[in-house]
Order: sequence, then structure tokens, then C-alpha cells
Amino acid sequence: MEHDVVDTLISPEGQLEVLSKAEVNKLLDTSQGGLYNIFRNCALAVLNCGSTIDDGKELLERYKSFEISIVQRERGIKLDIKGAPAIAFVDGKMIKGIHEHLFAVLRDIVFVSNEVSDNPKFDMGSTEGITDSVFHILRNAGVLKPMLNPNLVVCWGGHSINRAEYNYSKEVGYQMGLRDLDICTGCGPGAMKGPMKGATIGHAKQRLHKGRYLGISEPGIIAAESPNPIVNELVIMPDIEKRLEAFVRSGHGIVVFPGGAGTAEEILYILGILLHPDNAEIPFPLVFTGPETSREYFVQINQFIHDTLGPEAQQRYKIIIDDPELVAREMQAGIKQVREFRKSRSDAYYFNWGLKIDHEFQHPFAPTHENMRNLSLHKNQEVHLLAANLRRAFSGVVAGNVKDEGIRAIEKFGHFEIHGDKEIMGPMDALLASFVAQHRMKLAGKQYTPCYRVIQ
Amino acid sequence: MEHDVVDTLISPEGQLEVLSKAEVNKLLDTSQGGLYNIFRNCALAVLNCGSTIDDGKELLERYKSFEISIVQRERGIKLDIKGAPAIAFVDGKMIKGIHEHLFAVLRDIVFVSNEVSDNPKFDMGSTEGITDSVFHILRNAGVLKPMLNPNLVVCWGGHSINRAEYNYSKEVGYQMGLRDLDICTGCGPGAMKGPMKGATIGHAKQRLHKGRYLGISEPGIIAAESPNPIVNELVIMPDIEKRLEAFVRSGHGIVVFPGGAGTAEEILYILGILLHPDNAEIPFPLVFTGPETSREYFVQINQFIHDTLGPEAQQRYKIIIDDPELVAREMQAGIKQVREFRKSRSDAYYFNWGLKIDHEFQHPFAPTHENMRNLSLHKNQEVHLLAANLRRAFSGVVAGNVKDEGIRAIEKFGHFEIHGDKEIMGPMDALLASFVAQHRMKLAGKQYTPCYRVIQ
Amino acid sequence: MEHDVVDTLISPEGQLEVLSKAEVNKLLDTSQGGLYNIFRNCALAVLNCGSTIDDGKELLERYKSFEISIVQRERGIKLDIKGAPAIAFVDGKMIKGIHEHLFAVLRDIVFVSNEVSDNPKFDMGSTEGITDSVFHILRNAGVLKPMLNPNLVVCWGGHSINRAEYNYSKEVGYQMGLRDLDICTGCGPGAMKGPMKGATIGHAKQRLHKGRYLGISEPGIIAAESPNPIVNELVIMPDIEKRLEAFVRSGHGIVVFPGGAGTAEEILYILGILLHPDNAEIPFPLVFTGPETSREYFVQINQFIHDTLGPEAQQRYKIIIDDPELVAREMQAGIKQVREFRKSRSDAYYFNWGLKIDHEFQHPFAPTHENMRNLSLHKNQEVHLLAANLRRAFSGVVAGNVKDEGIRAIEKFGHFEIHGDKEIMGPMDALLASFVAQHRMKLAGKQYTPCYRVIQ
Amino acid sequence: MEHDVVDTLISPEGQLEVLSKAEVNKLLDTSQGGLYNIFRNCALAVLNCGSTIDDGKELLERYKSFEISIVQRERGIKLDIKGAPAIAFVDGKMIKGIHEHLFAVLRDIVFVSNEVSDNPKFDMGSTEGITDSVFHILRNAGVLKPMLNPNLVVCWGGHSINRAEYNYSKEVGYQMGLRDLDICTGCGPGAMKGPMKGATIGHAKQRLHKGRYLGISEPGIIAAESPNPIVNELVIMPDIEKRLEAFVRSGHGIVVFPGGAGTAEEILYILGILLHPDNAEIPFPLVFTGPETSREYFVQINQFIHDTLGPEAQQRYKIIIDDPELVAREMQAGIKQVREFRKSRSDAYYFNWGLKIDHEFQHPFAPTHENMRNLSLHKNQEVHLLAANLRRAFSGVVAGNVKDEGIRAIEKFGHFEIHGDKEIMGPMDALLASFVAQHRMKLAGKQYTPCYRVIQ
Repeated sequence: MEHDVVDTLISPEGQLEVLSKAEVNKLLDTSQGGLYNIFRNCALAVLNCGSTIDDGKELLERYKSFEISIVQRERGIKLDIKGAPAIAFVDGKMIKGIHEHLFAVLRDIVFVSNEVSDNPKFDMGSTEGITDSVFHILRNAGVLKPMLNPNLVVCWGGHSINRAEYNYSKEVGYQMGLRDLDICTGCGPGAMKGPMKGATIGHAKQRLHKGRYLGISEPGIIAAESPNPIVNELVIMPDIEKRLEAFVRSGHGIVVFPGGAGTAEEILYILGILLHPDNAEIPFPLVFTGPETSREYFVQINQFIHDTLGPEAQQRYKIIIDDPELVAREMQAGIKQVREFRKSRSDAYYFNWGLKIDHEFQHPFAPTHENMRNLSLHKNQEVHLLAANLRRAFSGVVAGNVKDEGIRAIEKFGHFEIHGDKEIMGPMDALLASFVAQHRMKLAGKQYTPCYRVIQ
Repeated sequence: MEHDVVDTLISPEGQLEVLSKAEVNKLLDTSQGGLYNIFRNCALAVLNCGSTIDDGKELLERYKSFEISIVQRERGIKLDIKGAPAIAFVDGKMIKGIHEHLFAVLRDIVFVSNEVSDNPKFDMGSTEGITDSVFHILRNAGVLKPMLNPNLVVCWGGHSINRAEYNYSKEVGYQMGLRDLDICTGCGPGAMKGPMKGATIGHAKQRLHKGRYLGISEPGIIAAESPNPIVNELVIMPDIEKRLEAFVRSGHGIVVFPGGAGTAEEILYILGILLHPDNAEIPFPLVFTGPETSREYFVQINQFIHDTLGPEAQQRYKIIIDDPELVAREMQAGIKQVREFRKSRSDAYYFNWGLKIDHEFQHPFAPTHENMRNLSLHKNQEVHLLAANLRRAFSGVVAGNVKDEGIRAIEKFGHFEIHGDKEIMGPMDALLASFVAQHRMKLAGKQYTPCYRVIQ
Repeated sequence: MEHDVVDTLISPEGQLEVLSKAEVNKLLDTSQGGLYNIFRNCALAVLNCGSTIDDGKELLERYKSFEISIVQRERGIKLDIKGAPAIAFVDGKMIKGIHEHLFAVLRDIVFVSNEVSDNPKFDMGSTEGITDSVFHILRNAGVLKPMLNPNLVVCWGGHSINRAEYNYSKEVGYQMGLRDLDICTGCGPGAMKGPMKGATIGHAKQRLHKGRYLGISEPGIIAAESPNPIVNELVIMPDIEKRLEAFVRSGHGIVVFPGGAGTAEEILYILGILLHPDNAEIPFPLVFTGPETSREYFVQINQFIHDTLGPEAQQRYKIIIDDPELVAREMQAGIKQVREFRKSRSDAYYFNWGLKIDHEFQHPFAPTHENMRNLSLHKNQEVHLLAANLRRAFSGVVAGNVKDEGIRAIEKFGHFEIHGDKEIMGPMDALLASFVAQHRMKLAGKQYTPCYRVIQ
Repeated sequence: MEHDVVDTLISPEGQLEVLSKAEVNKLLDTSQGGLYNIFRNCALAVLNCGSTIDDGKELLERYKSFEISIVQRERGIKLDIKGAPAIAFVDGKMIKGIHEHLFAVLRDIVFVSNEVSDNPKFDMGSTEGITDSVFHILRNAGVLKPMLNPNLVVCWGGHSINRAEYNYSKEVGYQMGLRDLDICTGCGPGAMKGPMKGATIGHAKQRLHKGRYLGISEPGIIAAESPNPIVNELVIMPDIEKRLEAFVRSGHGIVVFPGGAGTAEEILYILGILLHPDNAEIPFPLVFTGPETSREYFVQINQFIHDTLGPEAQQRYKIIIDDPELVAREMQAGIKQVREFRKSRSDAYYFNWGLKIDHEFQHPFAPTHENMRNLSLHKNQEVHLLAANLRRAFSGVVAGNVKDEGIRAIEKFGHFEIHGDKEIMGPMDALLASFVAQHRMKLAGKQYTPCYRVIQ
């Protein structure tokens, strides 16, 4: 099957990027130490927005001839693009939102490479060093806005949800938009797009012209979750752990819509953090919500949390079924508490320095067959550490499902094997089975072949 | 049944209105010559936005205790509002879009009363005088924007369309928004709201922050067609004829979605103008469009036009079924021709002075029983005059269906009687019957009682 | 002597004007009822900015070939200008400030002619009617800004002052600009330009990018007092009385610099109003100020006021010599009182409705020889009426000095004769003589020939 | 003598700074490795704006109790300031321009310390590495604006010039402002302030609201050249050499007004660069200008250049006496050539990468007694290298005159001794003597004690 492609030359707009000669050279460098490959692949993912492809490998193979290069001109740089997916264009002209995303990708890849990775200032072995790097990347992206009141709601949930769930997520976004709440998501389709679309209408009715639609991605996932063009602030974090840290440090509350393994991973991540004893006092509104037809999904999640992390973990979230207005009011009320808490302690509104994030949650987890096999999934550990390990298990499943590298590993070595105590493996198997049954593992219409095996 | 109401005090935002003492007094004057009643009723209609009420009489009865008054303060006027429909508020705070609409209503009612109605400068007996008054009202409302390129698409169609038609109108609006086209409608629900909602998303993706959503209403219809809050430029014209003239002089092309009698009235109005011999050379893109499921509606309309106005009338429009992208491209191409035509003649982009609008189309038509009975519905007249008379017939039907005055007249005197030649009355009866059959005469869920009888 | 001229074609910028066909025709109409002559003469005055010419007659004769016409284009009107003074251009391009002024002239001439003069709504026989017309002209010019705090200081004083006085007026403007005070003047050179220039620097240092430099002129004086291009809001009132009313109703306080007969006229005008019994409670900061070298000027004025209007009149102003910072602080404190007073009464900040302006001060005074001869200059009347008559006497002197019509009348009929009681005529003669001695009657370098004779 | 001081707490405005915890700690660190002292001293210099102090040592001693600290608040950082010079305040409120400058100082000190000094990415041993660091500092300060046309004129000249020279520099700035040229200076008083003040008025008349007034300073000189508050973009470079490189890489042409040793240093710097063989083709408008009364100054400079660098050096500049309009037109024409040159080579408008700056001009020169004694001042070297060495000699004189460190060294070790060939030392001695005779070595009113001795 042939896919339409377009060639074009674009200048930065909105965000005006200025690069040094050294930076341009590094971006054009196709060698190991150069940035060309990561830049090209992220750019391609951004351009593929709106397509229903959901694995990175398929994308790269479909647009093999895609090329992007930086051209210096008297008024600044331009991007010379060949073989771009036609879906990014309207009548031959690139959609402006996507156009901006390309320059956001450029900005973050240059910054991470030049100012973060190579800089001895950041001690990546320490919790503080990693958090500091997250702070610097977000600051450089212009995402930390000091004068604003807290109003940023992170929306998590599947990129492959059904129509009713999608419409519901739009309605929740609309009710939040009417209440001057901004939206932050992982910036792909499904539950990551619906709330932004709804909020856009809510903001338009309230004349909130500065509504923020913040998308936070990372090179490994962006191919499967192309930022939708409503996203007007895009940040590419270097890895999944920094991406998750970026969500919880910049957002003021989280709404979780139905999803699959990735959503479960996110839920375990935030619960693992909130259950850390140091965070016991910190307010953080967390709501799981969906339409009536998705009630079962959250029943299962709730049960799984009860069985593995225990009832105290259930105290950190609320489940609201089929009531978008209540969700919006709940977030508004919760964020008001966040505001008062931070104000009372002179903590920044724009970056949650106070939240303790254990090194376990910051350390990149490489979902190799060996690492998956060796996860500590037993109750003989603190509950927030168990959450960390459960999170990794789901992270591996996501990688095996949709990430280029993960898919290749599964093709080569077969299933991941996940071991653990029976009282944990039982609920886990049940939860994963329910995801498969509900078609929550892949985009609709494709047959799902599990990439894992739970061994009790 | 009780309806929730809210009291509030609001200041102008966005448009900052400054009133003289005399103007305030006239607005507060409840006597015959005063403006209080018309202001109150339009304000109530604006506040009722989003409700499914569709006749003005019902609205006025439902909110009998509604009051609005102007208060002078050191920083300007405020509006003191009592008993407003709760639907205009989110958690007790008025939606900003509605808030702006109230001040637009104020502005236009003051201007029409003080500068237009009482001003000998406007000779309302002449075509030029009426057009001049339309120009002045639009200019005062800030709607005539001199430096812009032509890009304003008027969308007509029913306020009571089905879900598929509504979603289709959103999609058309989205495709137009992606192409930098702005939207103008009669500003109620249904086909008047869908295109604006779609265009909002299209504009967001293209970062077109100055997208225009122009709503043009008039005191007699506004209760049935409350402006949706996306409308960011609202104008209240003094009567239906000036409203229609405002559409065709400020818009650069028209898309007609499915509707009922009101839509037929609009189609006959624009065809009557375009068929005037003086307008033969003037480009004016006109597209009728709907989803596959609405194909029948336009088949009927097309047949009716063929039978009554003849095949040459059919040359002035295109029918496009189920292809939103094509509709958008068609409008874009048509507006390009409009631009070239006006440029070649140094005609203003923002006001179509060149279009000949016959006095027949400007003269307010009072849909009394007598006037309805005496309409000249025969082929023994120029085709654009026949269009004018057919337009009036449909105008009367709309009044009898949804306008306060019309409903009261029908309640008092019974059906309107519509006479005419058989070769016209036949198609007309067929068309109206098809509207009833397709539930296009009332909001869904209500039983329609015809307000007319066609007498052949 | 030849004067360089330039031809050009300009489009509106900043203020985007949209004219109807009827308006354009009236502006192009050179007949008696048409607006061409007044528009041409005001436009020429605006273009002559920076030149040292100071009488209207000389200007018109110098640029006899000057022509201006309105051209309709697809994006709005343009002005086609032939034979414009080269001084308005930098390297062949019109200075943007002057460019804007031309369109302000156009706007006000059209509005006054169409909406005010011809409109039965304004009863020009009544005090309220005249005030209402002033309000409407200012509102249409966009000068009444409802949300702002009071901060507009009117600066009066001569257009023909010496270097020390000019530098002093700049310093006062600078100190006021540093304190977020805006400036309103009659918009010519000298004391009308200095404060604006100083305030521009003060505003720049305080990053007050919306600093207002309001100029209020009228067709009879504009030739002698071309608006300097810093003026970013220009209003052309129809006559001198409405111009003066515009100053006192839109400004929040007045600073008077040294000047000549025109300044004395302005002082008598404001004192006449403030001395009206109805205004006794109204706060209105009024400061007379100049450098040390100009002390004598205010000593004389102070004496004249003492001798004619009495010591209570002296209570309404302060004289501050050589202390710009104190002047600025005094105005700031006085305006704070204005703010509190208006707030306590919900009076508008942007228009001083509360001030009683007697009909005597509103009625245009035609300085004919007969009217000048018949002025009632005696103490047998209320003090504010005596002020009104003294004001007229000085108004006549100004007309005879610099206004086209006045100069022609003096050329034809000889001196104005000013009669009155000895105890008034004595001080008046002394004051006028001191003006002549101080070269305050004409631009420096010209010999002054008196246009009047005081007859005791 | 007591000096008034003020305590205050301010938040960032305009530029919204966000700091990490580590950055705040480093700023508060008073130890050797910390940033407190440099930050405090630069902040004090910024606050002392408008005072006539001109040496850094005097300033530090006058405000010994001055303290500044960073406070973290929920909306971002604040600065807590104690004992600040009262001159920075109007009625107790800090002038907004100065307020912004404090945060610019903060931004650059943090950036230079964290991202430049500690970063192995910048090879300070290489020409490219130093240029890259200059680029990064300017970019981080937001000074490199990619979409603008070249229009930035660097104005050099003395901070201690007489009234006629100051007024002349204002007039040149005014004529440049009228022509849409922006101004960049070293941001102190005198010739660094006049052009900005003039351009402010020129920009106001042309409605150029985005006029740029770029000030480039460095920690060693800022105490003697406090940025005037008109400066709306302030950058603190780490040393004098990077400051000079910033001027020539970001500006598009240079106007030199009369000055003293510092101005001679600047002239030698730019000539040394322009005389490098690699730069022979590069257009770079360079004008020396002053009023008639300063003609002698440039006669002497011109002679000195002729005698030391030779006639070909005289080809790179023009001398224009007493014609501000011509200066402005000359710069405009020269910058047009710059634009065409860069466009033809796709060179950036915002940073002059193409200019070869020899390492000799980049290397910080420490004006110790030994270094001054060992300067190579002979003709047996390439002319651009001789210029480099002459530049250093004048740099040492400036340090001995006004810089804290230099003054202390002179106090301790006596005069600098400057050796060299007679044919160079003769003209140099003559030039320095003429500076002293013309009172160009110190602020007016102070007796100048030479800090050097020329030894032939």
C-alpha cells in the first residue's frame, strides 16, 4: 500500500528558534553521537498525527524515504522536509499546530543533548539531579509559567478507547474548560485528545484565549501517540520516567479515563508516589472516571488495587461514573486545596518540588526479558515499592504492545514472563485478561496477540 | 415546572460600552417609546442559550420575573440582572460568551433607536436608505473589518436538525476552519451551531486565534434561536429583512444545511437576489449540503426550485452530498473569485455594495392573516419577484411556528391561508408536507400542528 | 518663497475607518453643504506639523495647490494627497503619527456632520443637549475609556513660549509620566508639546506602553496649533466652546504653563466654571506652574484674578514655581481626591457629568467687532458670569491674533474695542501689556501688532 | 554624607524568571564559589542609575548595608532588597525599567554560571568556543530575534560628555528612531543614554511600539555605567571582551560619539576587527559624529589612526560633523548593504557569524601593572594586531580610571607604565593629553589624576 507524501520547507512560527552553528551540525549528524536519527523519528511521528497507526515500527517502515534537514537562512533556520505523511497537510499546506510541534521537537532534542546530557551539573545518579533535569527541560520549553494559578489537569487514559468513552472524555474536557481548567495529556488520540477537544469549546465559550493544551511525550512512545494539533505546548522528555515525573510535577491533579495496560501503569505510578509516607500530607486530586458503559473497567481496577495495594491506597482516589460536571467540580475543589497548601508553604504553583518521588520511580526501566522476569512482585515490601514494581510490569506490557524496540524484542525472544506471589499474580492475570476481553490492548479492529505470560 | 434562576451584576468585558445619561434613561423607560421591553426580551433570549425551548412566547412566560437594569458606576455601566435562567451560568458565574452577548444586545438596541430610527439621514423609503442603515448598524457593531481578505461563509440551515445532520455540519465547519474560513450564522442551535463548533477546532489546530464566529439575529427570532456562546461577534438587526440583507452583504458565500421552512425562506431570499438581472455577473458561491441520510431533503428543494423558478435558478447553486472537504474547497474557490471580482472593481471586501437588492426583499413583511392571504404566487411575474413572494410565504410559516407574535395570531385567528397558481401551490404543498414528514417544523420530540393551509 | 511638497496615497492604520458611500460623497462635495473645505483645511493643518507658521491664513496661502481626496478600495478607503508640506515626511514617507491624525480628522468631521449636526436628538439650545453632543463626539473618537482609573492631566499654556519654559514643561511632563499620569493638551507646539515629550520618556522608563497623549483641537485653531505627532488620540471638536468643554469633562485636573492671551482665556474659562455655586464641592486640581524665570507671569495673572474675580477665586488653584516633582505629586494627590469623590457618587471616571457648565460657557462666542464692543465687563454680576465675559474678551484677542477669520476681520475693520468698568479694564490692560512686553502674543521673532484696544 | 535608601520586595514583571532550587542556593551562597557577591554588586549598580557616581569602588562604599536576597513564593521568585539607593524609586516605588534590569542581571548571572562557565561544551580556549558562548548568552537573554530585518545601531561614546554633545546624541537618536532604527549601547549615561532618549521620541511619533533599546554591560563596568531605565533589553556579559564581541555580532552598524579613553578603546577594537584580512569584504557601517563644537575630538582621533594604523584604516569609517539627519541616512544606507550581503549568503541577520574576530580580541586582558608594561606597541606586526594591542592599552587606562579593581591596583602599585615605539607612543601621549585637556577622563567637576604614564 502506497501512502501519500509531501515535500515542504517551513520556518518557525510562534516559537522562534535560534540555533548555533554547533547545534545545527549536531542535528545533521547521522553518526552514533549525532542527533539526526532521534530527530527524524520524532519529527515523523509528529507528522503522522491523525493516522490510526499505533506502533512505531510500522510507522518507520511506511515512510522509509522521509528526510528532514535544517537550513540556515538570514532570518533564522528552516526545516527542509521530504516525504512527509500527507495527513499533516491541508491542501498542501502543513497544519500550523503540527508545524509548531516540529519545532518543539527540535528545541527539546537540542536542549536535552546539549544542556542536560552533556552537563556535569546534573547528577543523574541522585533523585535531586533527575528532578533538576526535569525542571530544566520543562523550563526551557516555556512550560513553567510562574504567575498562573494552579489549573492544570492531567488526563490519562487509553489511546484506543471506544466512541462512548471518547465522547465522554470530550464532555469532561468541556466541563473543565468551562471552569478555566487547562489540560495536560500524553498527547496521542483517544482519552488524550477528547478532553482537549472538549476544553477547546469550553474555553471558546468562556473567551479563555490562553487555554493551555500541554502534551508531554518521549521519543519511545511518540510514534504510537502522535500529538494532536490542538496541543499548543509540546514537550519531548528524554524517557518514560522523566515524562511521568513531568506530569506529576507540573500538573495539579489527575483524571484517569478508561484505557489499557498503559493506563494501569500510570495509575500504579501515581499511587506509588502518593503512598510514599513523605507524601501523606500533600493534597493531590485524583479521579477515575468514564461513562456508564465503562463502569466495569474501574470496578476491576478498583478491585486490583484493593487486592494488591490495600484499602488505604483506595483513599487517594475517587471513582465517578457518568457525571462530567461532577468530575470538573471535583478537580476544581481539589486544585483549590492544592493552591492553599502550596501557598501556605510558599511552594511554587508551577512545579511540585514538595512531592517525594522515590528513585525507584525515576530510574528508567528497560523492559528486557530478563528484567521482566526478575521483577519483585510480592507483598513483603513497602506498599509504594510494590506499586513501583507493578508499574514496571505494566510498562513492559506496553512496550511489548506498541514500542518499536519492545515489539522487536518480542519478535526475537518470545513472550515476557512475569513471576510473582500468587496473591498478586492472580489479580494481575485477571486484570490483563479483562483488558484483552474489552479490546483495550490495541487499536480497534486489530487482533491482539499477548506479548506476556503471567506465571503464578 | 420550576426553572432555576440566578441574580447577578455584571460589567462589560471585551466590548467596553459607554452610555450617555440620555441613553441609559431610554433603556430604563418601560413606556411605549422606551426601550426597556425590547431590551429585556432580547436579553432573556440571550441568557436562555442552550435550552431546548423554541418559541418566544413560552420563554417569556417561563421567566416572568426576569428583570434587567443598567447601573452607572465610576468605571462605566453595569447590568443588574434578576431571575436569569440558570443555564447561562457555570457554578453561579455567567458564561463569558453570554456575558458579551448581553452587551452586544445593549449596543445594538441603543444604536438602532438613537442613531438609526430617529435620524432623518436614513431615508427608509429608498433602497439606498435601507442599505445605508444596514451598513451603519454593522459598522457600529465593529463587524465591518476593512483590512481582512474575504473569508466569511454564511451557514444557513435548521435549528432543529437530527444528530447526523448536526455532526455533518460540525465536520463541514471543521474543514472550513482548517482552511481559514470564518463562520457567520443566524446564531441559534443546530445548523447554526455545528459549523461554529467545528470551525473552532479547525482554527485551534491552525492557531487562528482571531477566528470570527459572527451571529446575526433580530428581536423577533432571537428567543427561538439563542446565540450559542461560541459566537464572538453578535449583531441584533432591527428586523428579519435587514438581518437577511446583513447576511448577504457581509458574507462572501453561503452554505445551506438541511432545515425546514426557515431554511427554505433563506434559500428563496438568496436566489431571488441572485436572479435579479443586475446581479447576473456577480460571483457568489452557494452550496447546499448534507449527509447521505439527508439527500432527500435537497432533492425536494431542488425539485421545488426547478418547478417554480426554473432551471436557470438551478445554475446559481451546487448540491454536494456527504463530502465536507469538497464543500470547504468549493467555498474557498468561490470566495477566491469573489475576491478577484471585487479587487478588479475596487469594491469593498467587507460590504457587498455591488449587489442589487430589490426593494421587495427589503420591505419588512408583516405575516398577518391578510397579508398571507394576498401573496402573489403566480408565474406571471419576473422570476426574482416570484422568489420574493414565495419567500414571504415561508416567512409567514416560520412566524406561525416559532415567533411570539405569529403564534399569538394563529391562536386568535386560526390558520394562515396561502393562495396561488396550481403549478406553484402544488410543489409548495408537497415541499411543506415533506418538511412535516421529516419532522423539520419543530424541535424533535414535539408534535407539529401546522399553522397554515395551502389553497390551490 | 517655495515650500517643498509631496504627493502620496495612504491607507488607514491603527484606527481602521470604514465609510459609507454617502459619507464619501459628502466629503468630496466642494459645495456649501459639503465637507470638502473643512476637511481639506484641517488635513493641511495636521500635515504642517513642526513648522513655525502660526496663523491659519498664511498656511492656506502657502499651500494653495494642496488637495486631498478619498478613494474607495477593496480593503477600505485610502487618502489621495497632492501638494502636502514636505515637513510631514521622513525620506518621502509620511510620519505615522501624522498619518493617524489625518484619519482622526476624517472620522470627526464625518461624525459631527452626519450624526451630530443633522440629528434632532441633540437639542443644541439646551445645556444638556450640548453636553450630550460633546459626549458623543468623544465617545465616537474612542477617547472615553471606561475601565481606566482617573489619570488624565490637561496641560494648558502658550504655543509660543521660550526655551526655559519649554524645557520646564518637558520636565513636568516627565515627572507626571513617571507617576503614570497621562497628558491631554490642545496639541500644538510649546507648552502643548513639552509635557507630552517628557511624559513619553517617563512612560518608557516605567514601561507604560499605553500612555495616552490626547490632543483636542477644533477647525478654527488647528492651523495655528498643528498636533505634534506624539499625540496618539486626536479629536477635532466642532468649535472652541465644545473643545474647552471636552477638556474639563474628560480631564481629571489641569496644569497651566505660561502662555499668552489664549492661556488667560483658558484660565478664565476653568475658573468661571469652578466658581459656579453648584460646583463648590467638586474637587478639581488646578496648578499654575513655570520655571523661576517665568515667576513674573503668574504673579501678574494671580494679581489680575485677585483684582477682578476676588480672593475666593484664588482658592481654586495653586501656584508652584520651579518644582516639577511637586507639580506631579500635587496632581497625583488631587486626582486621588477626584477618584474618591466620583467613586462615592458612582460618577463616571471618564466623563465629568457632575460639573455644572453654565450655558454662557457653552454658547459659541463669535468675536465680531460688535460682540467684542458689547461685552459686559463690570462687577455688577455673579463672579462666574464675569469670568465668562472676561474669557470672551481674551477669546477675541486670540482670534484676532492667530485665527484666519479673526485676522481677516481685523484687516477689514481695524482693532477690536473692549469696553468696561475701570476696575476691570485697568488690570486687563496691564495684563495684556505685560503679555506684549514678554513677547507672549506671537511666535518668537515676529513683531506683534495688537488687534485690540482696551477702552476704560 | 548620608544617602537615602529604601527597602522593598519585588516580583518579576515582563521577563518572568523561574529558578530551580539549586540556582537559588547558588545565588544566596556568599562563599567563594557562590554568586552572591557578583549578583549583589551588579544589582546595586543597576539601582544606582541616574546618580553621577562614576567609579565602582565609591558606589560599594556608599551603600555598604545594601542587601539583596531571593525569596521563593508560590507564584515564583521575589527579590527582597534592603538599603537600595532611593534614586531608583519614584514616591517609594521602584521604576519599572530598573525593576526589569534587576531580573535581567539575575538571569544572566545564573545562566553564565550554570550553563556556560561549568559546561564542557564550550571550549574557551578556541575562537569558536568563545563565540559560541557569546551566542548562547545573547540567545538566553532573548536578544537574538530571528524574524527582524537588520536595524540595530550600536552607539558608542563617552559617559561623561558635555551638554552640547549630549543634545547632539539625542538628535541623532531621534533621526534614527524616525527611520525605524533601534539602538544598542553600553547602557550608561552620556552618549549611551542620549541616542536612546531621542529614539524614544522618534519611535513614538512613528508608532513603533516595539522599539529596542538594547544595553550590553559587564560586571566590571556596570557600576560606572548604570543602565538607564529606557534600556528595555539588558544583557550582562561575563567580561569586557565578550561584551565587545556581543556589540559587533548583534549590531548592524556603529555610530561613535565623542568620549574619552573608553571610546578610543572601542574604536580600536572595531577597527582591529574590520582590518583583519578575512573581513575585507564584509560591509559594516561605521560613523564618527559630534556637534560642531566637538570637531576637534575627531580630528585628533582621525590623526591618531592615520599615524598608527595608516590610511587604509581610515577607509573603514566616515566622520560626519553636525548633521544628525545625514548620520541617520548614512546608517540606514549602510545597513541596507549589510542586509543584502547577509541575504546573498544566507547569513543570519541577528548574529554576525561571518565576522572573523581574532583570538587576540577575545582573550580577556587583565590590566595588571605587568601586563600593561609588556604590551607590544610597535609597527613590526600586522595592523590588526597592533590595533589589538593599542586597544589593550586604552582598556587599562579605563580600568585605572573607573573600575573598582583597577582603582585599587593603582592605589597600591602606582601608575601603569606604557612602553612602545616612539612613533606610536608620541601620538598616544598626544591623544591622552588631549582627552585630559578636554575633561574627557572623568565626570565633569572632578579633578582627574592620571593612572598611567606613557614611556617612549
